[in-house]
Amino acid sequence: MTQDLRLSPGDTVGILGGGQLGRMLAIAAASLGLRTHIFCPDKQSPAFDVSAAQTVAAYEDKGALTEFAAACAAVTYEFENVPGETAAHLATLCPVRPGVRALEVSQDRLAEKDFLTASGVALAAYARIDTDDDLTVALQRFGGRGVLKTRRFGYDGKGQVMIRAAGDADGALDKLKHAPAVLEQLIGFEREVSVIVARDIDGKCDAYDVSENHHENHILKTSTVPAKLDPDTAAAARDMAIQIAASLDYVGVMGVEMFLCAGPDGEELLVNEIAPRVHNSGHWTEDACLTSQFEQHMRAVAGWSLGSCARHSDVVMENLIGDESDIWPDVLSDPNARLHLYGKRESRPGRKMGHVNRIRTRRT
Amino acid sequence: MTQDLRLSPGDTVGILGGGQLGRMLAIAAASLGLRTHIFCPDKQSPAFDVSAAQTVAAYEDKGALTEFAAACAAVTYEFENVPGETAAHLATLCPVRPGVRALEVSQDRLAEKDFLTASGVALAAYARIDTDDDLTVALQRFGGRGVLKTRRFGYDGKGQVMIRAAGDADGALDKLKHAPAVLEQLIGFEREVSVIVARDIDGKCDAYDVSENHHENHILKTSTVPAKLDPDTAAAARDMAIQIAASLDYVGVMGVEMFLCAGPDGEELLVNEIAPRVHNSGHWTEDACLTSQFEQHMRAVAGWSLGSCARHSDVVMENLIGDESDIWPDVLSDPNARLHLYGKRESRPGRKMGHVNRIRTRRT
Repeated sequence: MTQDLRLSPGDTVGILGGGQLGRMLAIAAASLGLRTHIFCPDKQSPAFDVSAAQTVAAYEDKGALTEFAAACAAVTYEFENVPGETAAHLATLCPVRPGVRALEVSQDRLAEKDFLTASGVALAAYARIDTDDDLTVALQRFGGRGVLKTRRFGYDGKGQVMIRAAGDADGALDKLKHAPAVLEQLIGFEREVSVIVARDIDGKCDAYDVSENHHENHILKTSTVPAKLDPDTAAAARDMAIQIAASLDYVGVMGVEMFLCAGPDGEELLVNEIAPRVHNSGHWTEDACLTSQFEQHMRAVAGWSLGSCARHSDVVMENLIGDESDIWPDVLSDPNARLHLYGKRESRPGRKMGHVNRIRTRRT
Repeated sequence: MTQDLRLSPGDTVGILGGGQLGRMLAIAAASLGLRTHIFCPDKQSPAFDVSAAQTVAAYEDKGALTEFAAACAAVTYEFENVPGETAAHLATLCPVRPGVRALEVSQDRLAEKDFLTASGVALAAYARIDTDDDLTVALQRFGGRGVLKTRRFGYDGKGQVMIRAAGDADGALDKLKHAPAVLEQLIGFEREVSVIVARDIDGKCDAYDVSENHHENHILKTSTVPAKLDPDTAAAARDMAIQIAASLDYVGVMGVEMFLCAGPDGEELLVNEIAPRVHNSGHWTEDACLTSQFEQHMRAVAGWSLGSCARHSDVVMENLIGDESDIWPDVLSDPNARLHLYGKRESRPGRKMGHVNRIRTRRT
C-alpha cells in the first residue's frame, strides 16, 4: 500500500470511531471538500449525524473492514484503542494515518514509556509491574510512593491505584485484577500542560501553543491558553512534542500531556502520555487559531500541507460534562463564547456533551 | 403551527435544497448540536455528504414533504425559488423560517420592488412590463435606457436584456419569451455592495459589515471587507438591511444587494435585490467573524439568540469557479488563506466549486 499517497478533494477518508472527535473531524473534512465514512459499532454515534457514509459493525469484523477500506482513500481513527489486528488489516488495504506504530506505542503504557525514553524526552521514573514482588521492589526504589496503572485501556482515572503510604500497596494488584501494570513515581508536579503537534507526510511539523489543563474527577475540565509558563519552557514543551512526533514518523495530529514541575534549575517538564489523535485539550484551536486541530489532522491524513498553528486569541476551553450542557442558552448569549455541542442523545454523569471556547484578549 | 417554537439541541432542522449553501448550513448546525435533514431532488447534492438524514424527492411531492416535516422540528431553505405550494404545505406542519412571505416577495421582482418601496428604502425606478406598449412607455420615462428582467427565476445575469439604444428594445420581450417582466432604470452605479443581516424570532437584529462585490460574467467573483465607503454610508447600508428584515418580520439571515452611486449629495445607496437566505457575498464571515452567517442562520431558525456579527479581520472572499478550484494546493500553502470546497463531483464552466477567504489585517 502506497504510504505516500496524496488524496484529492472529493476523496473519502475513513474514520474509525464515531464519538465527538470523529464528528468534529468529519465536519472539518467537509469544509475541505473531503468526504468521510464513519466506522463504529454503536449505531447511536454522534459522528453518524454528519456523514452520509457509515458502517455499523464490530472493529473485529474483517469483512466489514475490507468493504470499508475499499470505500476509502485513507483511514484514520479518533481513539487509540483501535485493536491491533484491525489496524494491521486495514493497513494492508489502504494508508492508515497515523500509522500502526503510533497505536502500538500508545496502547501500552510500558511500550509508551520505553518509546518516550528512547526518544530522548524526560519523563517520571517508572517500573514494569507483573507481580507483587515487582511492586515491592519498585516502591522501595521510589520512596514508597507511586501510581500503579494498568498498561492497557486506562482512561479518565480508571485502572489506577494511588499508593502514598505503606498499606496502600496491599491488594493494589488485586484491584487491577492482576492486569499487567506499571508503577509511576509520584512527582510533586505543579500543573498539567499539553501540546498539540501536527506532522505531515513530508515530515514537516508544527505545534500549537501550550495549554494549561485542569481536571475534575479525573476528567479534563478546562484548557487555558496561553499557559502560565516561562517562554523558554513553552518553547521546550513544543520542541519535545515535535521530537516525539518525528521519532514516531507520525502523520496527523497528536496530543502530548506533560507535567510541569519545580526542578532545582527552575521549571521542568516531564512527559506524561501521548494520544495519537486529536485531543480534548486542543479543542480551543477551533476558535482561537486560523486552522483547528481537526482540520490540521485531516490535512495531514490527506497527505496535504499543514495550515498555520498560529494563535490569534487568548482562550479558555471548558468541557460541558453531563448536565452542565444545560447552560447552552447562556453560552449563546455571551458574545465572546463559542458553543460546541456533540448531539449526544442522552446526558449521563461524566459524559462529555460539548464544550465552550471563551475568547479572551484577541491578538493581532 | 407554533411560530414561536424554540428548538432544543439534538432537534432536527430540515433544509430544502442540497447545494453548497445547504452543505455549509448543515455543517454549522452540527457544531451547535443540531441535526439536519436535507430535502433535494438531485441525489448527487453536496449537502447529502454531511447529513445522515436525507430525502431525495421532487419539491412538489406532498407525501415526501409531509414525511420530511414530521422528521423536522423546523424547516429552512437554501434558495429562494422554493415553490410557493411547497412552502405553504410545510408551513401547515412545522415552522418554516424564514417565512413564506419572504419567499413570495423575493420570487417576484415586481413584488420585491413594491415591498422595498413600501419599506421606505431607496431603489432605482422601475416599471411593470407585460406588453410592448408597457415597455415603450417606461423607456420614455427612463430616458430610453433600462434593464429588462423577467419577474421570476432570473439569476447570474440570466433572463435579462440590456437596453441602451433605440433598437435594443425591439424584440426584447421576445427574448424573454414574453414572461412577465420589469424594466429597471439604468443607473450610473459605481460599485455593488451587500449587507448580510440576521434577525431572531424575538425581532432582535444585527448586520455584518458591508462587503464590496465584484462580478465576472455576471457571477460573483470577490467580496472585499471592509468596503471602501464613508462610515456614514456603511452605517446607512446596515440600517437599510435591518429595516428590510424588520418589515418582513424576518427570521434568519438575509442578503441585501445594493448599488453605490454618486449622488448630488455624495454617496447614495439603492437597494438592488434581497435574498432570503445565506448569501455568497457573506462567505467571508466564516473566517473573519466569531459567528459565521451559516451559524447565525441556524441559530435564528432554531429560535435561539444570535451571535455577534463583529468582524475581527479584513478579508477578501474569492469564489473558485469551474477549473479555478484546481488552485487548492496553493491555497493550502498560504498561511493566511482559508480553503472551502463544496465536494461537487463534477467541475463545469461557471459552476461554483468552492471559495477562499484571504485574511488581511487582523483587528483586535
